[in-house]
Order: sequence, then C-alpha cells, then structure tokens
Amino acid sequence: MQIDILSLFPEMFISPFAHSIIKRAIDKKLLSVNFTNPRDYTYDRHHQVDDVPFGGGAGMVLKPEPFFRAVTAVKKHIPVDKKSRTILLSPEGTPFSQDKAKHLATYDSLIFICGHYEGFDNRISEHLAEEKISIGDYVLTGGELACMVIVDAVSRMLPNVLGSQDSAPTDSFYNGLLEHPQYTRPRQYKDMSVPDVLLSGNHAYIDKWRQEKSLETTYKNRPDLLDKLNLSANQRALLEKIKNDCT
Amino acid sequence: MQIDILSLFPEMFISPFAHSIIKRAIDKKLLSVNFTNPRDYTYDRHHQVDDVPFGGGAGMVLKPEPFFRAVTAVKKHIPVDKKSRTILLSPEGTPFSQDKAKHLATYDSLIFICGHYEGFDNRISEHLAEEKISIGDYVLTGGELACMVIVDAVSRMLPNVLGSQDSAPTDSFYNGLLEHPQYTRPRQYKDMSVPDVLLSGNHAYIDKWRQEKSLETTYKNRPDLLDKLNLSANQRALLEKIKNDCT
Repeated sequence: MQIDILSLFPEMFISPFAHSIIKRAIDKKLLSVNFTNPRDYTYDRHHQVDDVPFGGGAGMVLKPEPFFRAVTAVKKHIPVDKKSRTILLSPEGTPFSQDKAKHLATYDSLIFICGHYEGFDNRISEHLAEEKISIGDYVLTGGELACMVIVDAVSRMLPNVLGSQDSAPTDSFYNGLLEHPQYTRPRQYKDMSVPDVLLSGNHAYIDKWRQEKSLETTYKNRPDLLDKLNLSANQRALLEKIKNDCT
Repeated sequence: MQIDILSLFPEMFISPFAHSIIKRAIDKKLLSVNFTNPRDYTYDRHHQVDDVPFGGGAGMVLKPEPFFRAVTAVKKHIPVDKKSRTILLSPEGTPFSQDKAKHLATYDSLIFICGHYEGFDNRISEHLAEEKISIGDYVLTGGELACMVIVDAVSRMLPNVLGSQDSAPTDSFYNGLLEHPQYTRPRQYKDMSVPDVLLSGNHAYIDKWRQEKSLETTYKNRPDLLDKLNLSANQRALLEKIKNDCT
C-alpha cells in the first residue's frame, strides 16, 4: 500500500512512524509512506497557507489552492489502475472504526489531508476529499495525530504485517466485542491472584469463561456495542445470565 | 499540569510533542511532561515486561510488577494535595470525548499507562488504573498514539494555552454540534465560489446562516449527536426546516 500524507508539519510523524507496526510494515515493503507539504505549493512570497475567514470570526482558514495543487501533484504518481482514496481528517467526518480500518486496508493508495488552525476552506472538504473521517468526538490541534492513528490501525490489517504473536483475531472489536481479561505470571501479586479457571488446564472451560467475560466486559463498559451485534442463541443466553448476576 | 507517561516506547513521543499545542503549553510552563519506562522497573536479567497468558492463547501479556512499581515511583513525586488521576489507555475503556478533555484539564496531575502487545494483565487495569479510556472503537498497536491524542485535546483546554487565534469556543463539539463551513480567499477558485451570504457584511444574517449550517452539518453527518443535546426552540425550528429541505 502507498500512503501519501499532506501535512504542514510532516516532521511530527518522524518518531511515531520510526516505531511500532508502521515501521515493521515499511521495513517489510508492505507499506510506503510519502509526505507532501502543501506549503511547497504556495507561489506567493510569504508561502501563505491560511487566511482570515469570509464573514468574520476568530481563527484562520486553510486556503484551497495549496491543497488542490498538492493533491494533484500526488495523484500524478499513482497509476490509474490503482484503487485510491483521498481522505480528509476532520471532526465533522464519519467516525473511524475497526470495520473502516479493514475496509481502507483493501486500497492500493490512501491520500490523507491533515489540517491545522481553525479549519479547511469548505471547498477542500467538499470537492477535494472523497471522504471525511473523524477518529472521535473531540478536538485536536491538527489532523496529524488522527492520521497517525488511522495509519496504525490500517497497517495492522494489511496482509502479512502482523506476526502470529500479534493475534489480531482476538483483539477487541474484531468480533464486535471487547476482549476478555488476560492474566500472566505471577499467579499471586500482592493480594491479587489469577482466576482459578485459567490455571485449570481445561481448555473447553477456559474458552467458555473467556467468551462469558468478553460479553460481560462489553455489557458493563460498552452496552451500546451489543445493540449492533447479531448475537448467537448461546451468547444471548450468556448475556441474560450476566444481566441477572449484575442486578 | 504535570503529566506522567508510562511507556515502553517513550521515544515515540518525541516529534509529536516537539510541535503543536503541546510544545506551546510546555514552553509556557503550563504543562510539564515526564516519561517513565516500566522496563526500568524490571529486576530480572532480561528486563522482561511481558509473559505468556495463563490459560493459553496467542500474544503476550504485560506483567503486573513493572507497572505497579513504576506508578508507585511516579506517585512519590506528586504532592498529596494535588488532584491526580491514573488512566490506562485501552480499547475496553470509556470513549474519550470533548467533555472528558475539559474534565481532565481540571486535574493537577495525570498519569497515563500505555500498553503494547496483546494487552495488560487484568490486575493492572483493575487495581492500578483509576480509569480506562479508549479514543475510539478501533485497535491500535499500543497506547502511545491514544495518549498523544488525549494529551493534545486536554492541553487545548488548559487555561491560557490557546491564543485568541485558536478560538476553541467555535470548534466542533464545543457546544455539542459540528462546526459550520468556513471559507477564505479566493472568492472564486476554479468553478467553486464562496456563498454570497458570507460576503454580505450583514453579521446578523451571517450568524444565522452559520447556526443553520452547523445544525445542518450535524444532522447530515452525525444525527446521533443531536439526540444528546437540549436544543433551543429556535434550533428545533431550524432543524425541522433542514429536515424538510433534505426530503
């Protein structure tokens, strides 16, 4: 996958992209990341990327020209037969999700537009971006951190990026539920011990416990997630038991 | 505010924290950030921070001791009269929001625990962390990016961090709605022009247009946000008009 990132602060990405799954994907040549600074596509003496909003108000608004020119330049290097998508990071966008990460991982090319300051001229969001994505209902200084989050989540979903030790299939959200609790050594730490079932060696019993705990964690922390799922008859029965135990 | 970050990869934070609002808050001495590596609190020869899960399964689980010891060491430096909170970044946590950012900005000290690998030993999440926060319904390689996102959003809410040019009060989510569209020069770019109302100079009319567009953007992109709000009679009337125009 080819990722192009348009940012006025490309140096922000250096240390996060030099670590973790993103570096591993780049090293394996499964991912290639390029940066383009829209400021390089300003032709005035001051390299101005923002200007005051029409209609008044505080803050500065990112001008359309540097972003349209930069995306055009980036697209010239993407073969026309490649599946590409131009995404703008914005709190106004569709909420990012694990399903969206899996879907974006099917593209050959992703172009991310990161903003800063008050926001983008609306012509950028409406006519240049094919999609607006938000990583959550909060305001960040710019799109850079949001872009890093999406690139990390998408990289994990690319074929052959995760090793077996990373085990995406048991991660939270993979099946729509939160993960069951995990324990490792020591069995006893201070006054806190590992549940006996996990030491039993009875794998059918352990699996059942984990399924129940996964449902229980989801019910207690994020009941809204359960509404979106098609639970099996077995899961529905388990959930009833959990609800009864909680009351 | 004093922020302590427990991470096995503290170097990931270098470039994001050297830019943007976080650097500005640090430079203004409104924020101080320290890093603690739990690996420095392992006393075995291999400095092991993780181990296989009890009960079997793929992946490694972060051991309790290095994290309990590291948090204890960090807390020794926080005066007892300071309002402090220990937060674990986890997909199982409460969803982060702008309200949560505002609330966390009222603390004197925040301690963030970042994980990696399969997850934390449950004793860390249950007995060491006072709160679990998730930045969204997706899986990241570690808690580091989530921590950066929260620190950025919280920093913006600290008194005197934002300059007037940053204008938090009109940001998306500040009043529960998404922001209205913004435009700047040029008036005409390619075949795309700025709405006439913004060039009218009639500020009452502009304000009304912006309120309507803010409601419209929210209704079209995130109708779920409207359900959580107590809309004024005026806003409810506007919303009815928008719904009628859309059908």
